[in-house]
Amino acid sequence: MDYQKLIEEIHAEVEQMNLHGQVATYIPELAKMDLHKFGISLITTQGEEFKVGHTNDKFSIQSISKVFTLAMVFPKEKDNLWKRVGVEPSGNAFNSLAQLEYENGVPRNPLINAGALVVTDLLRSKEPDALGAILGFINRLAGTNQIIPNKDIAQSELNHSSRNKALAHFMKSFGNITSPVNELIETYCYQCAIEMTASELAQAFLLFANHGINSLTEQQLLTLSQTKRINAIMQTCGFYDEAGEFAFKVGLPGKSGVGGGIAAVLPNQFSVVVWSPGLNAKGNSLKGMKALELLTTKLGHSVF
Amino acid sequence: MDYQKLIEEIHAEVEQMNLHGQVATYIPELAKMDLHKFGISLITTQGEEFKVGHTNDKFSIQSISKVFTLAMVFPKEKDNLWKRVGVEPSGNAFNSLAQLEYENGVPRNPLINAGALVVTDLLRSKEPDALGAILGFINRLAGTNQIIPNKDIAQSELNHSSRNKALAHFMKSFGNITSPVNELIETYCYQCAIEMTASELAQAFLLFANHGINSLTEQQLLTLSQTKRINAIMQTCGFYDEAGEFAFKVGLPGKSGVGGGIAAVLPNQFSVVVWSPGLNAKGNSLKGMKALELLTTKLGHSVF
Amino acid sequence: MDYQKLIEEIHAEVEQMNLHGQVATYIPELAKMDLHKFGISLITTQGEEFKVGHTNDKFSIQSISKVFTLAMVFPKEKDNLWKRVGVEPSGNAFNSLAQLEYENGVPRNPLINAGALVVTDLLRSKEPDALGAILGFINRLAGTNQIIPNKDIAQSELNHSSRNKALAHFMKSFGNITSPVNELIETYCYQCAIEMTASELAQAFLLFANHGINSLTEQQLLTLSQTKRINAIMQTCGFYDEAGEFAFKVGLPGKSGVGGGIAAVLPNQFSVVVWSPGLNAKGNSLKGMKALELLTTKLGHSVF
Amino acid sequence: MDYQKLIEEIHAEVEQMNLHGQVATYIPELAKMDLHKFGISLITTQGEEFKVGHTNDKFSIQSISKVFTLAMVFPKEKDNLWKRVGVEPSGNAFNSLAQLEYENGVPRNPLINAGALVVTDLLRSKEPDALGAILGFINRLAGTNQIIPNKDIAQSELNHSSRNKALAHFMKSFGNITSPVNELIETYCYQCAIEMTASELAQAFLLFANHGINSLTEQQLLTLSQTKRINAIMQTCGFYDEAGEFAFKVGLPGKSGVGGGIAAVLPNQFSVVVWSPGLNAKGNSLKGMKALELLTTKLGHSVF
Repeated sequence: MDYQKLIEEIHAEVEQMNLHGQVATYIPELAKMDLHKFGISLITTQGEEFKVGHTNDKFSIQSISKVFTLAMVFPKEKDNLWKRVGVEPSGNAFNSLAQLEYENGVPRNPLINAGALVVTDLLRSKEPDALGAILGFINRLAGTNQIIPNKDIAQSELNHSSRNKALAHFMKSFGNITSPVNELIETYCYQCAIEMTASELAQAFLLFANHGINSLTEQQLLTLSQTKRINAIMQTCGFYDEAGEFAFKVGLPGKSGVGGGIAAVLPNQFSVVVWSPGLNAKGNSLKGMKALELLTTKLGHSVF
Repeated sequence: MDYQKLIEEIHAEVEQMNLHGQVATYIPELAKMDLHKFGISLITTQGEEFKVGHTNDKFSIQSISKVFTLAMVFPKEKDNLWKRVGVEPSGNAFNSLAQLEYENGVPRNPLINAGALVVTDLLRSKEPDALGAILGFINRLAGTNQIIPNKDIAQSELNHSSRNKALAHFMKSFGNITSPVNELIETYCYQCAIEMTASELAQAFLLFANHGINSLTEQQLLTLSQTKRINAIMQTCGFYDEAGEFAFKVGLPGKSGVGGGIAAVLPNQFSVVVWSPGLNAKGNSLKGMKALELLTTKLGHSVF
Repeated sequence: MDYQKLIEEIHAEVEQMNLHGQVATYIPELAKMDLHKFGISLITTQGEEFKVGHTNDKFSIQSISKVFTLAMVFPKEKDNLWKRVGVEPSGNAFNSLAQLEYENGVPRNPLINAGALVVTDLLRSKEPDALGAILGFINRLAGTNQIIPNKDIAQSELNHSSRNKALAHFMKSFGNITSPVNELIETYCYQCAIEMTASELAQAFLLFANHGINSLTEQQLLTLSQTKRINAIMQTCGFYDEAGEFAFKVGLPGKSGVGGGIAAVLPNQFSVVVWSPGLNAKGNSLKGMKALELLTTKLGHSVF
Repeated sequence: MDYQKLIEEIHAEVEQMNLHGQVATYIPELAKMDLHKFGISLITTQGEEFKVGHTNDKFSIQSISKVFTLAMVFPKEKDNLWKRVGVEPSGNAFNSLAQLEYENGVPRNPLINAGALVVTDLLRSKEPDALGAILGFINRLAGTNQIIPNKDIAQSELNHSSRNKALAHFMKSFGNITSPVNELIETYCYQCAIEMTASELAQAFLLFANHGINSLTEQQLLTLSQTKRINAIMQTCGFYDEAGEFAFKVGLPGKSGVGGGIAAVLPNQFSVVVWSPGLNAKGNSLKGMKALELLTTKLGHSVF
């Protein structure tokens, strides 16, 4: 398979489609992103990278960070984790409180904000320097030590974190958050503000295509079963209320972030990251969705 | 009408009923209250007080404070107030978030927690020392300068304020709270922890029986229409999800607090406060409800 | 009190206000009503009637019928009734299903559609000819035998009864409806389509101002306590999501219908019916609300 | 791949696990099923069948019928279908009304009851004999003409269809159902009561593994894209609130029914049906879930 030719074709086709999205506006720092940026990086489980476009620009990974914290916490908590957070699609917007109320403070899954806050809370309860641990984990996966949060973005998110604070206090009232909320939200905003290039993110995300093994260090970080679970959660819950649409169009486990990144995996084959800051109405990268749709169509691959 | 004989009869009858309630347990300091305390104070618009039982014990007024802050804010905001909070019963528990979500952060009425937080937020936006202003207002109504919050109770409530913080942050995410949430919640916990005797509270509550006039100073604090509005809100929303029950059994505008106090008015006639810390399952004073039911039955009075 | 002069003044004042409402449009037959009709009938507990305007025109009583069926069923079921339906305000639109789902098929109160369906279901379970019984009850109260349903309106409502059928089937799934749903809805549509003049309705509604006694026959139909309960329910739940507003502006127990009628009582004094088909956005008669507001204001009466 | 050996192993392993489920009890006829029945049929896209256990016993396909009606309607309605029903997981129980209310009568997806009712409604609007058309469609797929509904089961479901009638009337009130509800529910109950053997169902379900082609007639019934869409919907929505769990454990698009059947496909490879009437708490066949989990584990296949 000539992946290089493939992603170049896709990149060109998508550029011709004249797709316009919107940068995320609810966080001022994110609103500064350049809508014309568009990069694709695909890395095979053999370690070969194919890339096109803006793959060396840093962007904040935002909600994609939720998958990394889940991958850190799950092997420690094991199935006890599922007492604190579910594994089912939420059927609601990413920051809804109503469902949380009817379900007594247990979030539907770890990829909605409430669930990710529980995961980061669990991480904090074991790690004195949770943010440092997250950065260490991601840098090791990406084979670098350059990955850090963007403080301006983190601060901007902190300044606009009322809804997340509401979620955290609400879960705390049910006993499902133990950290001081202000500290938890700070950790969370910094984890969302972690900046990576498309290449770095594809390298780090390879973990989920590679049976839970960090291919750079050969270290088994997740069991096969844990990897499968995380991929299943990405498949059914990774795209907020566009999960069904993404399953149909792309058919890969993946996760998007409002920074414009989408990371996905074809297990045993490759990880792929597309980055373009213009979002559709559901908050997912417009060019990113289209590029991944073309990728699986052209590959003749779909789980379906 | 021999009110003294009346309330003594009622006090005796209720004591014989062997009613057992529960002290509020979700706030540890409140759990320390003595279940045997039971006092009634009735003050006529002519200024005559009739009392029986523990009417000189201090207790925290809790949610009854919501009526005082409403009475402070309403004359300043006038009908603009109703853009920030409604006047209709909520049909839900006092601290529900789901309804708030479906109604875009505008609480149903000023007597549920969310609505009271909006009112205190409005007060804070005009008063640099909001708590001082509240204390001044209440002391002037009660004709004293001895009324202060109980710091232990305030602190205990602050330590158990996750749900209220969730409400405040949630409304802030809709733009309906402007104060820093931590400061707002602190003011709110202190206002709830204000301690008064039944006599003091009945004196202060006389405002609502007396056409909005502070009978001690002859000052008109609320217009007739504003007084009527506040009484109407107490009538339909003053007892959480027991509003209909209270309307039937008692039929007076009133407000209860989890400190065991209930304050009510018969407009043009009297204010009445019953205090007894044992609560029913809905969070309203068990002996208080029964005493007020007997009061209006024996008076032959009911609005119905 | 010169009631005749009073209601004439009110009628004239309201007519000058140039209020425009909308006829109910979701039921085609109701949309045919003449917006200019406007009548007031007030009948004292001494049996004297005062009236002005269109008080001899027939209009369908619609939801006001819910109060009559409640008055028929309550004395038979006694407090067992409250196992099937609550007494608290709903905080939601009159035909919401969501609340019903969270509360396992028990409607909040007998004056929302779901609760009224339960009441009519109870009536049907005891009365082979439920509609006949309702007509008999109302005719006896009004002192006539001329009151019948308008078949065209009943049929029009039957043709637009999807929401009510949904409510009934839904409660049946919880075991809270025993009648065949089609038959229940037919009875219900016919009860809503009962046509009365303002005078007839005021006479019939006098029951609730008169301690539960049919003043024409001297028959005690409801105990004092039952009358008080029904009035309390009207006070807190009679105006859908405008209950708080009505409590403030009017302060009387009452019930409105989308036919443009509003019936209310000042216990021990009078019943009053205002009819005008133009509705406000909440489904209550616009001129009716204003006339009753003026009435209690001018009377110097308000429960508050 | 020796599928015969594989499914025999799985059948034996599951039988040894001593799994006890419950037959569906809310429909009396279903409660009569024999808990010991357990059959597996797997048919490859080459047309070879492998089977073990009770594969020639008829059972009612129940909710699995929703996939067939979807496959009938989708090619006719094309993407207009998605104006009437969504493609996203519901996050709620299969028969919830609350979500439907907040989303104005448009069901989340075609595999919850509300969505399936919309699909059958669309079918009825084009087909005078909708049930006949469904039977024709399924018989042609299964290569037989013996497949019919079980009238006793259909009747039993009709007698317990209050919730579904509520859903239908409710959607009708939003204009999203056009059939008379009683007729629609009758068609729906009969479609659910269609009885097939595991072998027949696997043969019929092969359509979804075979790019939308009826392998017996070579007829292209669905486009590739339509097949992919239906499979994606099964993947994310096929198991009510156990969709995430099934995605993790099994990882195949599939659909379960309360008759104890589960049908799933591995696109391009095979369809598989497991039948065993004992259900888990979520309403999915207990042995069926376990057998499919073992199947994909042993096959080394998982989409993840």
